[in-house]
Amino acid sequence: MTQPAWPSSGIGALALTDLLGRWPAAEGPLYRLLATRIARLADTGELPAGLRLPAERDLAAALSVSRNTVSAAYQVLRDEGMAESRQGAGTRIVPHRTTPAAVHRANGFFAGLLSEAVVKADLSLAAVDCAPAVAAALTDPATLLDRAERDALTRTSGYFPYGLPELRSAIASHLTERLGLPASPAQMIVTTGAQQALDLLIRSEVLPGQPVAVEDPTYPGVLDALHRAGATVIGMPAGQGLDPDRLEHVVRTHRPAMVYLIPTYQNPTGLVMPAGPRHRVAAIAAAHPDTLFVDDMTLAELPLRDGPRLPPLAAFGPGQPNLVSVGSLSKLYWGGLRTGWIRGSEGLIARLAAAKAAADQGTAAFQQAIVAALLGGQHEDIVKWRGEWLRTRYDALTSALRASLPAWTWPEPDGGLCLWARLPGDADGSAFAQAALRHGVAVVPGRLLSASNGGASNGGASNGGASNGGASSGGAGFVRLAFTQPPDVLRAAVRSLAAIPAPSR
Amino acid sequence: MTQPAWPSSGIGALALTDLLGRWPAAEGPLYRLLATRIARLADTGELPAGLRLPAERDLAAALSVSRNTVSAAYQVLRDEGMAESRQGAGTRIVPHRTTPAAVHRANGFFAGLLSEAVVKADLSLAAVDCAPAVAAALTDPATLLDRAERDALTRTSGYFPYGLPELRSAIASHLTERLGLPASPAQMIVTTGAQQALDLLIRSEVLPGQPVAVEDPTYPGVLDALHRAGATVIGMPAGQGLDPDRLEHVVRTHRPAMVYLIPTYQNPTGLVMPAGPRHRVAAIAAAHPDTLFVDDMTLAELPLRDGPRLPPLAAFGPGQPNLVSVGSLSKLYWGGLRTGWIRGSEGLIARLAAAKAAADQGTAAFQQAIVAALLGGQHEDIVKWRGEWLRTRYDALTSALRASLPAWTWPEPDGGLCLWARLPGDADGSAFAQAALRHGVAVVPGRLLSASNGGASNGGASNGGASNGGASSGGAGFVRLAFTQPPDVLRAAVRSLAAIPAPSR
Repeated sequence: MTQPAWPSSGIGALALTDLLGRWPAAEGPLYRLLATRIARLADTGELPAGLRLPAERDLAAALSVSRNTVSAAYQVLRDEGMAESRQGAGTRIVPHRTTPAAVHRANGFFAGLLSEAVVKADLSLAAVDCAPAVAAALTDPATLLDRAERDALTRTSGYFPYGLPELRSAIASHLTERLGLPASPAQMIVTTGAQQALDLLIRSEVLPGQPVAVEDPTYPGVLDALHRAGATVIGMPAGQGLDPDRLEHVVRTHRPAMVYLIPTYQNPTGLVMPAGPRHRVAAIAAAHPDTLFVDDMTLAELPLRDGPRLPPLAAFGPGQPNLVSVGSLSKLYWGGLRTGWIRGSEGLIARLAAAKAAADQGTAAFQQAIVAALLGGQHEDIVKWRGEWLRTRYDALTSALRASLPAWTWPEPDGGLCLWARLPGDADGSAFAQAALRHGVAVVPGRLLSASNGGASNGGASNGGASNGGASSGGAGFVRLAFTQPPDVLRAAVRSLAAIPAPSR
Repeated sequence: MTQPAWPSSGIGALALTDLLGRWPAAEGPLYRLLATRIARLADTGELPAGLRLPAERDLAAALSVSRNTVSAAYQVLRDEGMAESRQGAGTRIVPHRTTPAAVHRANGFFAGLLSEAVVKADLSLAAVDCAPAVAAALTDPATLLDRAERDALTRTSGYFPYGLPELRSAIASHLTERLGLPASPAQMIVTTGAQQALDLLIRSEVLPGQPVAVEDPTYPGVLDALHRAGATVIGMPAGQGLDPDRLEHVVRTHRPAMVYLIPTYQNPTGLVMPAGPRHRVAAIAAAHPDTLFVDDMTLAELPLRDGPRLPPLAAFGPGQPNLVSVGSLSKLYWGGLRTGWIRGSEGLIARLAAAKAAADQGTAAFQQAIVAALLGGQHEDIVKWRGEWLRTRYDALTSALRASLPAWTWPEPDGGLCLWARLPGDADGSAFAQAALRHGVAVVPGRLLSASNGGASNGGASNGGASNGGASSGGAGFVRLAFTQPPDVLRAAVRSLAAIPAPSR
C-alpha cells in the first residue's frame, strides 16, 4: 500500500486510455475534453506529480484521435501549469497537490458510475431497473410489514452490524431452501451489496502483499478492491471455463490467502462450472484450509435457459470453514437496495461484523425488513419476471450482433447479464471502447476485467510505461457488453458499433 | 498492518478486560462465561495463538471476580484444548486457527453492538430511537415523494457512489442555510453514516504508519477505524477542551496526515470549542496544507441549552481544501437510516467516491430520497422534538447521579448525548464497567476513548502485557454514560451503579 501505483518513469498509452474512461462523452472540442480529464486525474492523485505522459502519437493511436488533438491537449495542460515538457524527457505532470492525498489507485471500471458524462447507450454497467414488486414494496411498506413489526424496528437503535435478524434468517432460509446451500442465521452477515461483501472479506482476511487468485477475466469490482488492499492478484485463464488443474497448481505454488471464483454464470463469460470441477474445487479447498475459497453467487438466479441447477461450492463441504459464499439481490430485485450477504463460519462472520462495525456500523435498517419480507413472499414471482425481462434483452442484443457484426464471437452464456465479445482480427478493446464512446455507446474494455493486467491503473506501470499489447495485457481483444438496457436501445447501440471502423491493436 | 496486534509475550489484565466486553451478561456460572468468551476471542483471532494470558490474580482484580473464577475458567480452556499452562510460563492460547485469518485488531467499544448479551440498561451506546416524523416517512414514503419522483428513481440503476443527487443538494442547502457552512452539491458525498465517512477518509487519505492526531478522549469509533488502517494515533488532551497551542505543536512536530476534531459538543465531554480557538485551528490548517483537518459535526444539532451557535471549522476557510466536514443524521433522525456525509474539495470528493465505489458502490438509494425530502420539509420540527427528548433524559441522568453518586464529577456538557464521568478516588473505569455489567448496566470504560491507550486491543501490547494503569492508560478513571435511554431506565441504572462498591485501580 505504500508503493506508488505508477513508476516515476511514465504511464503507457493504453493504461492511460482506460483511466480516461468517458472523457469524450461531453460537449466541447476533443482536445479541451482530453485536457480537462487528464487535469482531473492529476488533481485527484490518480496521475501523480512527476509522471511522464505517453508520447503524443501513442496516445493518439490508443484514443483513435488525431495527433493534433493530443498535442493541443498537452499544450492546454502546459498553459494551465498542470504539465511541463522538456527536451527528450517528454511531458510530465507538475507537482500541484491540492490536498494531502496519498497516491491513489483507481480502476476505470467504475468510471461509468463516477462520471457525469451521459451516453446514448450504456452497455458497460450490468445494472437492472427496479422490479415492479420491489418498487411497490418500497413505496408502500405497510403492505408487507404490519404496524407492530414497524414499531418494533423503529424503537431499536437501528445499528445492526451483522444485519437485521429477520433478514439474516430470511437469507439463510433462501439459501437452504432455494439455492441448495444449508445455512443458519448465525452463518450470515448482511452487507451493502456484494461489493461490500467482497471488500470486507478482503480487508479482514487478506494482508497487503498476500496473493489472491481469481479467474481471468473476472468481475472488475473485485480487482479494484484487491488492488486498493495491496493484494498480489494472480489470474487463472477462464475465458472458456476454469481448469481445476490450473487452480490446484496455483494454490499449491502460491498458497493464496483467497481464491475468488464465480462458478455460476461467470462474469463476464456467463459460463457454468460443471459438477466435476466443482467437486475438484471443494477437494482442493479441503486440502488447503489456510486459503479462503469465495463463491460469488450474485448472478446465480439469472439463468438464460431452463434446466437443472448445480449447488454452490460450499454445498460440497457445508461445514468446511474455508468455503465462503457471497451474494446479492442487486441483479434480481434492484441495485438501489444495496442488499448483499456473506455465508461463512461463525468465527469468520464475527470478524467480518467487527470489520463492518468499524466500516459503517451496519447497513440501513428499515429497508432490510422490507427485503426480508420480499424474500419470504414474492421472491419466486420476481425471479420469473426478471427472467423474462432478461431473455428479451439477451435475444435483442445477440440477434443484432449476428446481423450487424457477424465477425464478433462470444462464448454462449448460460446465464448472467453480459456477453464477453471477442473483436475480429487484431482490434484492441480499449481503443475500440474509446471509439464507441464517441458514437454514444459505453462498453467495458476487456483489459479492465483482466487480473494479469494488474487492474486498469497500474497495468501501464508494470509494463514500464510501454504502450504495448503484449503478454501482460489480458483481455486486450475483448469488450464486455451488458444486455440490461431496453431492447431498442441495445439494437440502436449495435447499429452505432457497426459503424465504427475497427482500430488495430 | 503486518505486525501482530499482540506481542507473543502476553496481554495485560486491563487490556483483556476491555476486550472481554460483556462476557458476564448472559446466563450461567461466571467461570464458564469467562472461558467461553476467551475461547471466542481466540477463535476469531483477536487473541492469537501463543499469547500468554494474564496471571489469575491480576485478571481477577481487573474483572472484580474471585481468583477461583479465573482459575476455573483457565481450567476449562485447558480441558477444551484452547490453552496450555507450563511451569513458570503462565497460561497460553494454543494454536488452533479454524480459518486462514490474519491477526485482527478489535475495539471493545463496538462490543455492545456485536454482542447478543442483553443488559437491563445500556448506557454504552449513544443511539436514539427513531423520531416519529421519520418513522412515518419510512412507513409511508408516498406522503413525501410523488409518483413521478419514485418512478424516476426506481428506473435508475440505483448505484450512486456520490450519493443521490437530490440528497447531495439537500445536505448542501442544509449546511449553507442552517449550519453556517457554505456548500455546493459537488462538494458533498453521501455515506452510510458518519462512521463510513471517517472510514473512507482514513482509507483514502491516510497511509499505514502515518500519524493522525485526535482529541483525548475522543469518539471511539474513529480510533477503531484508525487502528485497523494501521495509522499512528497521537492523542491531545481534551478533557477540559483542546488547547490550540498543543494542537499547533503536534502538527508542527508530527506533520500528521489528518487531525480529527469534534469542536461542537465533543464526544464524550459535550464541550464546545470557543470562537477564538476555532480561528486558531483554521489558521493552523492554512499553514499546514498537507494535513487534512476533519470537523465531525455529527452532534452539532443536539444542544442542551439555548444560545448562539458557532460556525464549523470549515466556515473559517470555506475554500481551503484541507478543511473537511463530516456529519450524520443518525443522532437526530435515527441511526437505522445510516445517512452521513462529507463536505470537502471537489478533488477530495472525487477520490472518496472512487473509494466508495470499491467499498460498496453507494448507499441504499430509495431511502436517500426520503431523507432528502425530510431535510427540505420537517427538519426543524424534528430538531425541536429531539431537543426536548434529549433534555428530559439529560435531566433524569444528572439528577439521579447527583442524588445517588455525589462523589462523581463530569464537565457540564453544552450538548451531545453523553457525560464524561470521573469516578471518585482511584477507581478504575474498566474494572467498574465490569462490575456494572454484572449489575445489568453497560457503560463505556474511559480507556476505550483514549488515543494514548492505543485502542482497546493493543494497549496491553504496547505496555508489554503488564496490567498497569500508568501513564499510557488515558481515561482510566472515567466512564462514558450516554443518556439516550428513557428517564426511568436511566434512574434505575444509577440506582444499580450506586450499589457497586468502587473497585480500586
